[in-house]
Amino acid sequence: MNQIEIISENSNCTAINVGSMDKWNEYSIIFPISRREVKGKIFLKDATQATGTEISLNSLPPKAELPDFHFHKKNEETYIILRGSGLFLVDDDSFPIEEGSVIRVAPEGKRCITNTSDSEMLFICIQSKAGSLEEYTIDDGEQVSIKGVES
Amino acid sequence: MNQIEIISENSNCTAINVGSMDKWNEYSIIFPISRREVKGKIFLKDATQATGTEISLNSLPPKAELPDFHFHKKNEETYIILRGSGLFLVDDDSFPIEEGSVIRVAPEGKRCITNTSDSEMLFICIQSKAGSLEEYTIDDGEQVSIKGVES
Repeated sequence: MNQIEIISENSNCTAINVGSMDKWNEYSIIFPISRREVKGKIFLKDATQATGTEISLNSLPPKAELPDFHFHKKNEETYIILRGSGLFLVDDDSFPIEEGSVIRVAPEGKRCITNTSDSEMLFICIQSKAGSLEEYTIDDGEQVSIKGVES
Repeated sequence: MNQIEIISENSNCTAINVGSMDKWNEYSIIFPISRREVKGKIFLKDATQATGTEISLNSLPPKAELPDFHFHKKNEETYIILRGSGLFLVDDDSFPIEEGSVIRVAPEGKRCITNTSDSEMLFICIQSKAGSLEEYTIDDGEQVSIKGVES
């Protein structure tokens, strides 16, 4: 499967399925200006109708790197490495990354990822507007009793 | 390893490592009011110094469910299922989820997850302020030439 399936959609929720992690490399996007195809990348915002994040699921082949360093105008990014290992570069800094690494980059940081290993690297990248979060952890949440069962 | 290691920290980036996905279940948090311990949960905002998201990494044991339905005051949530399968509940809706399912829930949606399988469920939950994202996909990014290499 390399297309997004809608599981459920209602007034408070949109749920999709993109397929197993082994299939993320079958997706690709076309960059709008350069018309260059980037394989192994799935953007989720339109599919999930998200309003606070743009999330991408990414597969980087062995020994490959993101095509360019880039920075952002307004958005902070958080990268979560799920599989594989490599090198993360920010400005003049570089450091090894692997499964379980989480990297938060401010908009102005010039960043790139290289997969230095012989196996696929999988990672999630989350864009959100820098400084936008007001409440967090569990403070923004409220438990509810529902269907007559008290929590 | 069940404590967060700092990989790198500089003016534009904080990078941490939480360990392999098999180790997420070794973490726990204490809920501040009830003092109840919730196992298999890692909040990332403080560790990464994020300003636009609160991200949690979660391990749900076989046949377990989140302790309560909850909704949010300001934050949208996106759940990304990485391992295992189960049932997602929002308001009066419920649907099966598995590896590759992505669920966006509006703040007011009353939500819960159940792991109906015989194996661990791993998922990432991303909180961001609903309606906060202004630019997205690659429109917020700018490629740069760096170290003398034109992109």
